[in-house]
Amino acid sequence: MKLHSYVQGQWQFGGGESTTLRSAVTGESVAEIARGGLDYAGMLAYARDTGGPNLRARTFHQRAIMLKELAKHLSQHKDEFYALSTETGATRTDSMVDIDGGIGTLFAYSGKGRRELPNGHAVIDGDMEPLSRGGSFIGQHVWVPLEGVAVHINAFNFPCWGMLEKLAANLLAGMPAIIKPASQTAYLTELMFRRMIESELLPAGAVQLICGGVGDLLDHVTGQDVVTFTGSAETGRKLRCHPAIVNNATRFSMEADSLNCSILGPDAVPGTPEFDLYIKEVVREMTVKAGQKCTAIRRLMVPESLVAPVIDALSKRIEEKVVLGHPGDEGVTLGALSSLDQRQEVRDRVRDLLDTAELVYGNPDECDPRGADGDAGAFMSPLILHCASPVAGSPVHDVEAFGPVSTVMPYKSAADAANLARLGQGSLVGSVFTADPEFAREVVMGSASHHGRLLVVDRTCAKESTGHGSPMPTLVHGGPGRAGGGEELGGVRGVFHYMQRTALQGSPDMLSAITGRWMPGASRREGEHPFRKDFDSLRIGDTVKAGPRAITIEDIEHFAEFTGDTFYAHMDEEAAKANPFFDGRVAHGYYIVSLAAGLFVAPEPGPVLANYGVDNLRFMTPAYPGDELSVTLTCKEKNLREGAGYGEVRWDTVVTNQDNESVAQYDVLTMVATAA
Amino acid sequence: MKLHSYVQGQWQFGGGESTTLRSAVTGESVAEIARGGLDYAGMLAYARDTGGPNLRARTFHQRAIMLKELAKHLSQHKDEFYALSTETGATRTDSMVDIDGGIGTLFAYSGKGRRELPNGHAVIDGDMEPLSRGGSFIGQHVWVPLEGVAVHINAFNFPCWGMLEKLAANLLAGMPAIIKPASQTAYLTELMFRRMIESELLPAGAVQLICGGVGDLLDHVTGQDVVTFTGSAETGRKLRCHPAIVNNATRFSMEADSLNCSILGPDAVPGTPEFDLYIKEVVREMTVKAGQKCTAIRRLMVPESLVAPVIDALSKRIEEKVVLGHPGDEGVTLGALSSLDQRQEVRDRVRDLLDTAELVYGNPDECDPRGADGDAGAFMSPLILHCASPVAGSPVHDVEAFGPVSTVMPYKSAADAANLARLGQGSLVGSVFTADPEFAREVVMGSASHHGRLLVVDRTCAKESTGHGSPMPTLVHGGPGRAGGGEELGGVRGVFHYMQRTALQGSPDMLSAITGRWMPGASRREGEHPFRKDFDSLRIGDTVKAGPRAITIEDIEHFAEFTGDTFYAHMDEEAAKANPFFDGRVAHGYYIVSLAAGLFVAPEPGPVLANYGVDNLRFMTPAYPGDELSVTLTCKEKNLREGAGYGEVRWDTVVTNQDNESVAQYDVLTMVATAA
Repeated sequence: MKLHSYVQGQWQFGGGESTTLRSAVTGESVAEIARGGLDYAGMLAYARDTGGPNLRARTFHQRAIMLKELAKHLSQHKDEFYALSTETGATRTDSMVDIDGGIGTLFAYSGKGRRELPNGHAVIDGDMEPLSRGGSFIGQHVWVPLEGVAVHINAFNFPCWGMLEKLAANLLAGMPAIIKPASQTAYLTELMFRRMIESELLPAGAVQLICGGVGDLLDHVTGQDVVTFTGSAETGRKLRCHPAIVNNATRFSMEADSLNCSILGPDAVPGTPEFDLYIKEVVREMTVKAGQKCTAIRRLMVPESLVAPVIDALSKRIEEKVVLGHPGDEGVTLGALSSLDQRQEVRDRVRDLLDTAELVYGNPDECDPRGADGDAGAFMSPLILHCASPVAGSPVHDVEAFGPVSTVMPYKSAADAANLARLGQGSLVGSVFTADPEFAREVVMGSASHHGRLLVVDRTCAKESTGHGSPMPTLVHGGPGRAGGGEELGGVRGVFHYMQRTALQGSPDMLSAITGRWMPGASRREGEHPFRKDFDSLRIGDTVKAGPRAITIEDIEHFAEFTGDTFYAHMDEEAAKANPFFDGRVAHGYYIVSLAAGLFVAPEPGPVLANYGVDNLRFMTPAYPGDELSVTLTCKEKNLREGAGYGEVRWDTVVTNQDNESVAQYDVLTMVATAA
Repeated sequence: MKLHSYVQGQWQFGGGESTTLRSAVTGESVAEIARGGLDYAGMLAYARDTGGPNLRARTFHQRAIMLKELAKHLSQHKDEFYALSTETGATRTDSMVDIDGGIGTLFAYSGKGRRELPNGHAVIDGDMEPLSRGGSFIGQHVWVPLEGVAVHINAFNFPCWGMLEKLAANLLAGMPAIIKPASQTAYLTELMFRRMIESELLPAGAVQLICGGVGDLLDHVTGQDVVTFTGSAETGRKLRCHPAIVNNATRFSMEADSLNCSILGPDAVPGTPEFDLYIKEVVREMTVKAGQKCTAIRRLMVPESLVAPVIDALSKRIEEKVVLGHPGDEGVTLGALSSLDQRQEVRDRVRDLLDTAELVYGNPDECDPRGADGDAGAFMSPLILHCASPVAGSPVHDVEAFGPVSTVMPYKSAADAANLARLGQGSLVGSVFTADPEFAREVVMGSASHHGRLLVVDRTCAKESTGHGSPMPTLVHGGPGRAGGGEELGGVRGVFHYMQRTALQGSPDMLSAITGRWMPGASRREGEHPFRKDFDSLRIGDTVKAGPRAITIEDIEHFAEFTGDTFYAHMDEEAAKANPFFDGRVAHGYYIVSLAAGLFVAPEPGPVLANYGVDNLRFMTPAYPGDELSVTLTCKEKNLREGAGYGEVRWDTVVTNQDNESVAQYDVLTMVATAA
């Protein structure tokens, strides 16, 4: 099989000497991959000129729906992905992480995009910033899509998830991508990519694929492009210094393997659920993907007194539960490393670690895989090392053996454990197994600065825990320092890596016109009651003013008795006066907003279907008996729900008193029907 | 005067050959600066070991108050800063931007820190993320301070603001700094820094100063440090590739000069206020700081038909209003460039520009400054160039003359104007002068991806506008691509550049204990009514449950009549049934929250002083006559107001019906008194 690239809408086999890709399990040829020979500058131009505009023409919600359709389409082809995945050395469980994990990320981003992004083309960031006393000049931040290309250079260990988790974010942002999988397992990426193209769900230019080298691609990136890299720190460093990336301040995001730790709490002695959970999770992390995960646990930190019990329990569980063998065989829990070269690399790194650690379980050079040839396939036994003195600068904090290898080391106190965690110089993830919240707090707060993610496992959450090694679509993935300094995923946080945040300044009317959100100080348009207008007719700035209505002491008492809210500030003049915020008996806040609704509502059936909530309600000035309240309700923002027959309308609401002081400010949220 | 560095708490004159710094105005010696010879690694270690822990021991609000005190202290010394500032070539207006602008940024960050950050040590980022069906396993992002050092390498043009605008953010974050001003104007930075140290407002190790070169400082940075650079793109590129920065994925933020544009709308013909405002602003931008601002307008884009009128009007205004001369003289509006070398640099760049542009005003080689010697001081006339064909790749989009120099170029349409703006390859700021919202929207949305800030000026906001060239503390400063790809300021956005965002995972109880915020699903503690507990005694998780109370049709009608809210869904069974969200007449949302307050309130005087608001109110399930509602109120978050005698307490509130369905969810916000 020849792996083709997808270039400017066409499948193409590149030029140059080609390489044979071999099965991790049998060593037999799986595919041929070309070295280069593509028009890389042309690919970038095509993405910028065709893909970008096509994607940006859709709204966030439309792109989110596209992701969902894509995920559904790929789900239908899972069987063939699983079948081919075996050749990468992956067991069925390993493949699930890669294939279902990747498709699940598309689903998750589709949901987040519809719930947390507007159904428009820009995202408003934060509140209006006042910039002047008179209010005629204001500021507002917005996010808009970058107008370049996301270039994703991916690692060999997750040929599916690695592609989809990045694509989900850039496509939702409105940015096209060029994907370059690691050659070693590119055949699986190519198959899945092929199914994406066949679905015809993505607009022209939205995605392109490079099977083989990137040629001169990076020479042509600009300040509007984003380059992401997942893989070895060494390659990442080279890319980070690429002249075009440096000269254009191209955004560069890197996610590198790190020396992730897992810490056993002093309370988690043998016999506790947390001890058992720890042993189980460590063995799982050592065997899933044969330990070839950038999030795998490399450093096991256990109280001094628990070192021997932990080593014993780990050894016992490996003996009892781990079955090394052909990843396609039923019952096998530990498949092959991705290649014989990779196995040699792991053996070399283990030797580095053995300078200051001893091997307490397994043999790096020998193993007996079930149903497979241990010489032809890249199999390796799980290895446990023990480092009695994990001082700063020790290889255990610096050398990564990217296979089923972990090192146990002792700690003396919570502070010491946090310090050992920090000696990893920046990690993707760490975990703590404890039922003691104080220990957890001290270790977590003492090492959070060095981690992208920290997991605390106890008996109450273990059953539902997603585990140490699994990045979640809604949580940040990445880490400082050695882990590359990048940030991916995290729900919509990940989307903003493909967007530019721009501060806008101007008059309220001008910024309302530009952003589509009514800004405080902008013009209000009175006329037909806006509750009588359907979603399509309603315009930002449409306003109803109503009132005044006087508040009496009888009203306050009546409201108190009717609702049961007899708080002293409403009922007792003397006690209310003693309160630092009030001059006497005040109206209930809930009465003020209820009365305001009574003033602004248009009671007859019409396009406004429901009030589904209120945001940011603040009581600014107390309302006293005798005060006369008025309300101004202004259409602030509209958000169509695709295909629902209605949309969300947010109303800026201000209640004022007879002196025009602001008594209450809030946003009323309604559902409004579209035109029939 | 010998400029000293401030190293590990001591003033010290470095070693090596020293350099004489000369007045920009007279060429006379102002100060001597050493080349190097400091213990740079020791400075970093001191900041990490002493400054970081000292700062992190304080809360955000305590650090914010420290910034305010510092700003007040520096304000008292303004006169001497102004006096010395003249030597840098700055007029009084120029100095105001630098000195008052810098001090104002401290004030602004102090206010933002107290309003928008918690009075604690970590910032909770976003909502809890559900990670499991059963709710026993959840996620929550937090920001914590990085544990390294902010190394600020600053530019010569803003010796005060450049220091303070960066310091405000890192100090508020809880991170110490080492400041390295550009040598040329380091004497002013050193003076202000000296006053900061004398104030004794900053804890030991919080700030250090390097007058002179940075020696081997950067060789010792780690993944916990942040290096910021303001200055030329060339130097920035070198720093970005520094081996230690690359190897450790050290955060690097760069802010470089850019080819900022200002666009005149087609509506803004001579005779309109916007035309006059444009002319005024361009001349102001050319003369403030003698055009030595990274935000200055370099490219003037005007409708083809307005090129001649704009050039005429600019020339006329310069003739009438601009007085070049000794910056200390009354009436002088254009001072000196920072040095004779700098003037030569500007002349060279102007010659590059003249390859494709013509000089239409001024003479780069001659001028006649009032009250100063035009040979000894670095004076230069304003220069206006005209480029008739500003095609892509033209030097007008690429060459920056860092002085009082701007180039006029024609555009044909809004799309063309946006395209010309984008040809700057990434800018700090752009501006549009127009009264036409549609033109503004098209240009702004068409070029926002290439800008950190975009300003729209019309007659309604001009009086209060802060202008094209002024970064605001509350708005992002920085820009993509050529502008360096960095982001500074922007209120608390700027603070997060000195913090790590970490995703935490675990059980609701565990994450509540770690974050100090009650998480949905965490334990609730019933007992004494929590409204009876003062701020200090109140604990996260303290809960009151109350109810049930039945809703009757009479209640709904009564509430409708009393408040005036007779919306049909409450009053008309048939019409309510026709609504897609309801099965019949429903209770008012405002009645539900009023009734809930009646259930949970403790009426007698006590520590709860006031309900100052409600956040995130959502009505989840309609409440019908016959439903019985209960409410659960749980202490979610506490935030002490320093010195006020009370704090803010946020209560998680859930209203449920007889089937335990959630009817309404929201946060109630109260002020609660501290223990006497």
